[in-house]
Formats: sequence, structure tokens, C-alpha cells
Amino acid sequence: MNQNAVIRRSWVLKHRPSGAPSAEDFALRDDAVPEPAPGEVVTRTIWLSIDPYMRGRLREQQTYAVAIQIGEVMTGETVGEVIASADPGFAPGDVVVGARGWQTHCLTPGERLVKLDRHGTPLSAYLGVLGMPGATAYRGISEICQPKAGETVVISAASGAVGSVAGQLAKRAGARVVGIAGGAEKCLFVQETLGFDDCVDHRSMDLRRELEACCPNGIDAYFENVGGAVQAAVFDLLNPFARVAMCGMVSQYNEAAFPAGPNLGFVVGKRVLIQGFIVSDKPEKLAEWRALAAPWVTDGSLAYREDVHDGLEEAPQALAGVLGGRNFGKLLVRVGDDPR
Amino acid sequence: MNQNAVIRRSWVLKHRPSGAPSAEDFALRDDAVPEPAPGEVVTRTIWLSIDPYMRGRLREQQTYAVAIQIGEVMTGETVGEVIASADPGFAPGDVVVGARGWQTHCLTPGERLVKLDRHGTPLSAYLGVLGMPGATAYRGISEICQPKAGETVVISAASGAVGSVAGQLAKRAGARVVGIAGGAEKCLFVQETLGFDDCVDHRSMDLRRELEACCPNGIDAYFENVGGAVQAAVFDLLNPFARVAMCGMVSQYNEAAFPAGPNLGFVVGKRVLIQGFIVSDKPEKLAEWRALAAPWVTDGSLAYREDVHDGLEEAPQALAGVLGGRNFGKLLVRVGDDPR
Repeated sequence: MNQNAVIRRSWVLKHRPSGAPSAEDFALRDDAVPEPAPGEVVTRTIWLSIDPYMRGRLREQQTYAVAIQIGEVMTGETVGEVIASADPGFAPGDVVVGARGWQTHCLTPGERLVKLDRHGTPLSAYLGVLGMPGATAYRGISEICQPKAGETVVISAASGAVGSVAGQLAKRAGARVVGIAGGAEKCLFVQETLGFDDCVDHRSMDLRRELEACCPNGIDAYFENVGGAVQAAVFDLLNPFARVAMCGMVSQYNEAAFPAGPNLGFVVGKRVLIQGFIVSDKPEKLAEWRALAAPWVTDGSLAYREDVHDGLEEAPQALAGVLGGRNFGKLLVRVGDDPR
Repeated sequence: MNQNAVIRRSWVLKHRPSGAPSAEDFALRDDAVPEPAPGEVVTRTIWLSIDPYMRGRLREQQTYAVAIQIGEVMTGETVGEVIASADPGFAPGDVVVGARGWQTHCLTPGERLVKLDRHGTPLSAYLGVLGMPGATAYRGISEICQPKAGETVVISAASGAVGSVAGQLAKRAGARVVGIAGGAEKCLFVQETLGFDDCVDHRSMDLRRELEACCPNGIDAYFENVGGAVQAAVFDLLNPFARVAMCGMVSQYNEAAFPAGPNLGFVVGKRVLIQGFIVSDKPEKLAEWRALAAPWVTDGSLAYREDVHDGLEEAPQALAGVLGGRNFGKLLVRVGDDPR
């Protein structure tokens, strides 16, 4: 196969967005699909994952990951099909995760790729419930929140890729699980499909009072995805020895300057644990999670929902949507045909 | 001995202070020293400890301990000498810790008392370096900050009862230790007597810049005693995977309403651990700490400084002083003669 006959389309960063990102902040670039050097693999992208953390990569100042530079291809997890390989471990037709980029074709060292069973779980699941978001939920719940039977656990962004898994894991541990989501439709989904005990609409007039009504025994653990007013309401209701898994604060990702936060006096008196974490710090947990959860996906006991946008061109709008809470479930861009 | 012939003097709460407490908020009450019922012990107070946490007991709303009620004797750790006992484990002349109260004589169940060697370490040390403050430092450093050789650890209220021990423990672990204290005299003491590597005056015009100059490699662990502007300056300089032991926030204890705190976005990106704790949750750690540190006090390798006020009548002013940072070292009130 002559790769040079195939065009590769990529989204590169044009300038750093101010506020919500849009297609204006990126440029489409077409070039030839490269030939793989020894050890490299070329994939055609089937699924591209869109996640809130991506907004941080567009900032000049970084806390933990290198910023995307102007003119550089935007990053993102993909599922792809191998179309050319100079790594003996991969052959055309293999389906893999591990290639990154908002592009129709990725060039990746084979050592970063993991082969998937193309006939098993739907491939898109490896970017959501069985991918980075699922593993994030797994680490936050199992390592930090550590819910015990009868405790009350609150999950923000409860209908999202991470929150939906986090809440179901807390339910499996026997906790009372209360979600927080935006709008009646999402709240219904969180209760009826995901099986949370209750769900509060963060757009309600009196979030604090409604949350209190759903948590008559206070809050023992909180999985934080959003920050802002939701965080303030939850912190007010934390019980002594509560655990807070700080996964993200998406409500402020588009802000140039971050608002003040909570006075931390309560952390002393209530002996609260607040722990930030990033899933990629323990890459081995992803394989552990996939092995644990794949049977639950197959038997339907771990529910998930996907929100699919069609075509690579949709990626910038999709990112703006997930940052604004306009997605409903794991946000994916279908870039190419799924062989299944 | 007829206890009824002896007068017991006590400070009782008259009304809840607004802002800094003063003698006006308390009343002196004289009554007869009670006779011990079976299992009880009467002590005459030698030393009374004055600590910042006491301000919290004067508030109407409590987070973790029951409020002192109007008309009730104010609480506080003491070292006392047994003068009457109806507990076979104690006899007149025994010196004990465990009796509580701003009073010249305490009536206490014997099971709460621990006998001290009256000929060993100075008795006052059992309220400071070998008492609750020392054990607090021990838990915060060993369980939360967990300093490693070469790391940078910052200690606020560094010349105080807790901070002085916390910093010396971090030094023993091989860390670079930077104190924060109020005024040149305290900073000199922190460096020269306690042996910290550096000390920043929190009253300086540019705390943040001075702290940064003392921590060229950032901050890996922080022992928090004060909150406010000091907390903000330290949080800005935390390294990835930093640990924050939340022991207290004395700068706001006199405030009716607490100011806003830091935006917590950095906790995610830097994977910071923030852990509140209260020493009395693990009472067994106090004995462990005493056994560990008593030889260090004896051989002089664990330095400490005491700030002694004479006479029970001084207790309210002493409390106001420790809340305002006007003490220099562990604050104690000498209530009665020390038999040593």
C-alpha cells in the first residue's frame, strides 16, 4: 500500500482560545500519510475521544502536562486500525488503542499501542467505560473515596464518562450514591439507567438545600469533577473523615482567572482528605481496570452512554460542548468506519 | 486532709467572645475543693496549657468537639499533683497529666490520668514538647507530610509548640526545612536554636517572593498551622505530589466569618494531598510519642521553648496572646508550685 496516495487530515492549534474553544482556534491541515520508520505503526483513526482535560493543554501555563504548541496537532486518545506497520508486533487490520491526535491517521511507536479484540466489546468503549475515563473513576473510587456500605457518596458530572462509572462503582460497594447533573433528562438517566439512588440538578434554584435533602446523613465521599458552586454545596455537607477525590474542575476550565475557593478550616475540624490525582500517573491501572470491567460491560451490569459526533471536522465543537456540559454521556468523534 | 478547707478557683465562661477573647468573657468562681467519689482523684494544678484550639470551644457551632457552655469551667490540659484519691491507682503526691480545666484543683476519674516521673523531664514539657502539641507534630509529619531526604518542608507558626517540633522532625528525616514565623526574633530562634535551614517573617512586605527565595526547588510538604496569606503563598509554590498536613488555621480563629480560600484547581494538576487531622483521634499516639521523644528532650537534641505566665488569673490574656501570635514558644500558665 502506498501511503503517499492517502491524505492525512489533522487539526492543529492556530491560537490559544480565550474562554470556550471553537473551530476558529484550530486549523485543518492536509498532508500525505507518512511511511512508518522501523518500530513505528500507521493507523487510520476510527474513534477519537474528546475529554475536558484537553482544555488544559491549550493553556500557555501548564501544571502537569506539556502544552500543545501553536501549529502542533491537537492531542486525543483514539481507536484505530493499523494500515501500515514497521513493528513486527502489528499488522494491517489490527485494531489498537494508544495512538493520539485529532487526525485521520496517526504515526505511533508500536510500543505505545495495545491491540484490541475487534470482535468483542464495541471498540468505542475502549475510549470511555473501558478506557481512560473508566480507569479514572476506578482509581478515584478505589484509592481515594473508598466507599463503605451505608455511606453516602456524591458524584458530580454524574452522567458523564467518568462520573457514570464512579457512581456505579460506589453502588457496587454498597454506598448510597447521589449524582449531580445538569438538567432533568440527565438526572433521570443517572437514576434510571445508571441506578444511582438520587440525582440533583445543579441548575436548580437551591442546589444546597436539594443536595441536603438527598443526603440526610451527610456526605462521606465526594468524586469532584466540576468545582464551583457544586463544590461549595458538597463541602458544606461533608461528614467527619470524608474523602474527596479531586479529578477535575471543569466548570472553570474556560476561565482566564480562577475564582476563590472554599475556606479550608473545615478540613481540620472534620479531618477531611482531599486528594488530587491523574490517571496516567499509574498506567498499569488501565489494564487492571479493563480486565475487571470488560465482563461487566459484556453482561450489561456496567451501564454507559455515548454521545457521538460524526467526522473529524466536528472535534473543536465537540470539545466546546463537553466543556459546557452539552454532551450527554461519553463524547466521541467517529473519524472513520468501524470494522465491526 | 479536709478538702473543704481549701478553696478551688476556676475560670468559667461568662459569654462567648466576639473577636479576640479577653478576661471580660470569663468569670472567676471560688468554691470548695470537692471530695473524690469512688474512682475519682483530686489534683492541685501545677501547670495549665494554653493552646489555639481553645478558641474553637468558645464558639456556639462546633465541628468536632462539644462547645463550652455558659457557666461551665473552661477546658485545658494540666499537670497536677494528687492531693486526694479514691482511686487505688493514685496516692497524694503523685504527679499526673490528664486532668482538665482552667482551675486550681481538678476532680477527675482516675482512668483518665497518667502518672509522671516527677524526677525526670521537667513537668511542663508534658504539656508541650512531650504532650499534645508534640504528638500533633509527630502525627502530622510522620503520617501526612512524610518528608524524604532532600525534599523541602515548610512549617508555619514555626516557633510555636507544634511547629517547633514538626520542623525538627522533618530535619531528622533529612529534609530542607523552612519555617514561617512572626518577627525577626522568632525567625532567629527558629534557625539558630531549632536548627531549621531558613525562616521567613510572615510580616514581610513580600512574603511570597521571600518564601520562593528560600524554596528554590519548590515545596514538597507543608505543615499548616495558620491559614490566610501564609497558606496562599505556600500553596502557590507546592510541587507535584505535595502533602499538606492541615493542623490548624489560627489566623482566622477569632473571625466571625471565614474568608474565601484558595481555588483548588491546583490540587488536581499537582496531585496534592490535603489531610486534616486532630491529635486526639489517635490517643495511643501520645504515649508512642512520649516514649520516642523523651530521650531527645533529655539529651537536648529536641529543642523547645516555653512562654510562662504566672497565676491562673492570667489564663484569658494568655489565650488572647497565643491567638494573636504574641507568645514565643509553648504557652503555659504556672498555677501552683512545681514540686521539682
